[in-house]
Amino acid sequence: MAKSVRYSSCETPVKTLSKTANRNRLCPFQDNFRWKGVKVNEYKTDGDDWSGVARQVLIGASGESTKFHLRYFEIKPGGYSSFETHKHEHVVIGIQGRGRAKLDRRIVEINYLDVLYINPETPHRLYNPYDDPFGFFCIVNARRDRPKSVKGCNLQEV
Amino acid sequence: MAKSVRYSSCETPVKTLSKTANRNRLCPFQDNFRWKGVKVNEYKTDGDDWSGVARQVLIGASGESTKFHLRYFEIKPGGYSSFETHKHEHVVIGIQGRGRAKLDRRIVEINYLDVLYINPETPHRLYNPYDDPFGFFCIVNARRDRPKSVKGCNLQEV
Repeated sequence: MAKSVRYSSCETPVKTLSKTANRNRLCPFQDNFRWKGVKVNEYKTDGDDWSGVARQVLIGASGESTKFHLRYFEIKPGGYSSFETHKHEHVVIGIQGRGRAKLDRRIVEINYLDVLYINPETPHRLYNPYDDPFGFFCIVNARRDRPKSVKGCNLQEV
Repeated sequence: MAKSVRYSSCETPVKTLSKTANRNRLCPFQDNFRWKGVKVNEYKTDGDDWSGVARQVLIGASGESTKFHLRYFEIKPGGYSSFETHKHEHVVIGIQGRGRAKLDRRIVEINYLDVLYINPETPHRLYNPYDDPFGFFCIVNARRDRPKSVKGCNLQEV
């Protein structure tokens, strides 16, 4: 039963379940970076400042009472997320392949199991300049502000 | 500079840094499941209800303003964490080897990248009955209650 609406990705609202769903639960990992019982969605439902990004919400869409959400994002070769800023932080953990983050004017390489902390208010974009998919966990606060798009960055610049 | 004391593992207080440390930061993954710049500590500094558990705090000990902490735990073959209960949740992600969780009377197998949500108030223990190390991320709320030890469980029972 729908209880409230939160933001599961940076801008995509999803319905969360009531607290009756706040129970012990195992999400087994499956082939091809999927988790049993978890849907694959697009990163956002609108906007043209991103490309080739898929999203799975592992913790946060089933009524869990945690103060954080856990998501898995996968960026196709050549894909990129929005270049944006917000007050909440990101914690990114590389899981599949490798990719990069643009943090304001700094470029950071993200390899397997590297842990990246993105500070509040830092304009940022995750992107994949390589030939294989780039997959990562992203942990965020459950309650968070809506991102603001940052102009003046395109993939020719990163 | 020390600002406050929080609980980085379930019972181990660590000094957190001031907000000047709340900056973009990459922790590169290294050989042998270590992260550059991150110390390896024992799971707890006291108690005799656990064995062979090491802890690394990846997010939460450096003044980050996140509402969550990210830790990596590694349990040696035959090792186990305390059997305990608390009001806060755990999110566990298998990263190295395989292991098990005892959730009240239920036993759950945790393999690579499986995601386990442990509900508030569930008595639980993580343990490793296998021949190789069992490593996992554990995400918790930054502000959380102190665990209570639960009697009546030993490794012969699990």
